[in-house]
Amino acid sequence: MEAELKATLSDLQNLKTSLSDPSHHASIDQIRLRVENLTSLAMAAPTRRSKVKDMSAEVVDSNPYSRLMALQRMGIVDNYERIREFSVAIVGIGGVGSVAAEMLTRCGIGRLLLYDYDTVELANMNRLFFRPEQVGMTKTDAAVQTLSEINPDVVLESFTMNITTVQGFETFISSLTNKSYNQKKEGTGVDLVLSCVDNYEARMVVNQACNELNQTWMESGVSEDAVSGHIQLLIPGETACFACAPPLVVASGVDERTLKREGVCAASLPTTMGVVAGLLVQNTLKFLLKFGQVSPYLGYNALKDYFPTMAMKPNPQCSNGPCLERQKEYMLLKPARDAAAKAKMEEELSTIEIPVHADNEWNISVVDDCEVDVINGQSSDALPEGLVHELPNADVYKHPTVSNDAVDTVDDLEDLKKQLEALNAL
Amino acid sequence: MEAELKATLSDLQNLKTSLSDPSHHASIDQIRLRVENLTSLAMAAPTRRSKVKDMSAEVVDSNPYSRLMALQRMGIVDNYERIREFSVAIVGIGGVGSVAAEMLTRCGIGRLLLYDYDTVELANMNRLFFRPEQVGMTKTDAAVQTLSEINPDVVLESFTMNITTVQGFETFISSLTNKSYNQKKEGTGVDLVLSCVDNYEARMVVNQACNELNQTWMESGVSEDAVSGHIQLLIPGETACFACAPPLVVASGVDERTLKREGVCAASLPTTMGVVAGLLVQNTLKFLLKFGQVSPYLGYNALKDYFPTMAMKPNPQCSNGPCLERQKEYMLLKPARDAAAKAKMEEELSTIEIPVHADNEWNISVVDDCEVDVINGQSSDALPEGLVHELPNADVYKHPTVSNDAVDTVDDLEDLKKQLEALNAL
Repeated sequence: MEAELKATLSDLQNLKTSLSDPSHHASIDQIRLRVENLTSLAMAAPTRRSKVKDMSAEVVDSNPYSRLMALQRMGIVDNYERIREFSVAIVGIGGVGSVAAEMLTRCGIGRLLLYDYDTVELANMNRLFFRPEQVGMTKTDAAVQTLSEINPDVVLESFTMNITTVQGFETFISSLTNKSYNQKKEGTGVDLVLSCVDNYEARMVVNQACNELNQTWMESGVSEDAVSGHIQLLIPGETACFACAPPLVVASGVDERTLKREGVCAASLPTTMGVVAGLLVQNTLKFLLKFGQVSPYLGYNALKDYFPTMAMKPNPQCSNGPCLERQKEYMLLKPARDAAAKAKMEEELSTIEIPVHADNEWNISVVDDCEVDVINGQSSDALPEGLVHELPNADVYKHPTVSNDAVDTVDDLEDLKKQLEALNAL
Repeated sequence: MEAELKATLSDLQNLKTSLSDPSHHASIDQIRLRVENLTSLAMAAPTRRSKVKDMSAEVVDSNPYSRLMALQRMGIVDNYERIREFSVAIVGIGGVGSVAAEMLTRCGIGRLLLYDYDTVELANMNRLFFRPEQVGMTKTDAAVQTLSEINPDVVLESFTMNITTVQGFETFISSLTNKSYNQKKEGTGVDLVLSCVDNYEARMVVNQACNELNQTWMESGVSEDAVSGHIQLLIPGETACFACAPPLVVASGVDERTLKREGVCAASLPTTMGVVAGLLVQNTLKFLLKFGQVSPYLGYNALKDYFPTMAMKPNPQCSNGPCLERQKEYMLLKPARDAAAKAKMEEELSTIEIPVHADNEWNISVVDDCEVDVINGQSSDALPEGLVHELPNADVYKHPTVSNDAVDTVDDLEDLKKQLEALNAL
């Protein structure tokens, strides 16, 4: 359109030059003015919000971060703005990954790395995020388009490629280890990897990369009948890796491409995928910003609104070499961890036990330790006037779901095998 | 832009007429061709998908409904296409309501009625759905814009008004009772009302309207600290209404407008709101398409990933007049319900017990009843080759959360009061 407008202006100039009668020049000038008007109309980009230098907690309609910074005043998060320091990699920008990317973008995450090789199809329209006018674009390009409009503060890096190829895997590893965004960061260049892929092979590749890099990651999945899903936290050496045991996701190794060729496709629902993306990013926020309890595994059975939780220890006979190395490292560091935990506990105890004044002429007494805890507890729970907690604290219910007894910690491979066999036999 | 282009064409025509020398006419014609080109470029609407007459299960990339129709082949839903017959009203197009509207739109719901009086602000950008370029538009207009692009098959009706005013309430009632979309429908003109408002007053208004109209509805809410939420099913006369007892949402009667004036706002997160919208629409799909178990109440505590459930019977001393009327009607119909349930059970039993052949020369025996059930159970659970259920059936766990014992049915107002007092005292 821009080129066409320029050409029109040039044609008008030529016509004016060739017209000897100056009485026609006014008409030409009028037309030129119109075309210039059209040019400025055409070039006007849709209203975008400008970048924001610092996150403000100011309560004005024009502040895109006011409702997030309010998490600090509510006592939920200590320092919300830290979210800008974090990099999160999302592998698979489909029904779960795209929504996870949008949530993190709206939360103002520092940097997102997006990986997918697929293109947008009308068949994706039953899930959130992609729009019909994006059909034919790569999912990464379409995501960058939408996300940069939503929040220009987020640094977006997209990788349109298949991580399961040899070259794709190399690019995957080198992008995860690139520390140019935050050079001070320990470990890799990202704080968390989110796996939002739809097949077993890709999950095993993410698992391999994260075990090699000692990179904490979260796995997610939705069943082929669209009515259940899960999220899982994987810390190399500390929790079971994806190869340690097939998790409750019984991945069959058949991916959607094979199915589609046979005229069969998996079902999917925007609801289930939205819930799984929400639980995944909620767990991500809790992990990065250190609030609440990070769930090691959380399932979602939509037919019964049932949400199983559990924790799995790594398998000492895992078939994945790097997993075994991480397990050894984790075991070797156990004495140091125990010592640190003990020291921390002692420090906390000593802070409380130190008598401030040996003599106490005025009979001033400190509040009893237990009461101090209660007071602190209340003050951090206290909300501004007019606001009240919606749900009671889960502890109120003394419900087995959240007690430690109900979280099945699977220690032994044989136990796990038996459990899985029992489940599969049903 | 269209007007400016038309004016340019007209100016060119005038100039051509005034030019006596025909050698200049060619130049004018060339410029006119350019402007016509520009017009067609400017008028080209973004690629939209065309309307779809019938939902097809065909597995092709261009079919927006293939993944939804697959729910039938997976044995989850009997007749997915029925979704086109349903009308759902969504009151409050904020962080939960807008996402609920998008999910239902992508699912291909027949008709959506949208109610909100507010406009889009940058401060809404930390939740899904609205985009920065929509700032200043009413939420209903912005929603209709986005939703009609996503799925032109959905009939969208928007009401930019406040239902808590006298006139707004009248419009609300008359829009719910308008049966022009589906004249065969019993009851009101809508199948379900979803309350996605952010204050107590508006919830009480929805409650009043639904009790008056005997309209089933679902309530949703997210706490002011952004880390918990709930959904609740309300069937007038059968379950507790919103006035029967303050539910676990301890609504304080202070709405966000008041808070904002004091420089204070509630916190919100796209994760919590996305999860609540997902659970709400999932419950809506289960209710409309008759699959799975519709939850009477489902809470979400994000800090602990804890999801309490319960059911509440109506309060015989409810302060809401129409609620008491609905309770009476429900009680009066109890004998008829019991008789219908008994008849249905007897019919099922008799179908099984009829001996097909009184004499049995070849000693053919039918499979034992219990075994028939198991076989049927397996066959409806069976997935196409290569597909397996991700999560085991919830029953496998024999977990108290889903057993009937754990669903607290609150019969008595005094009990409920005591429970609420105990919770508030913590």
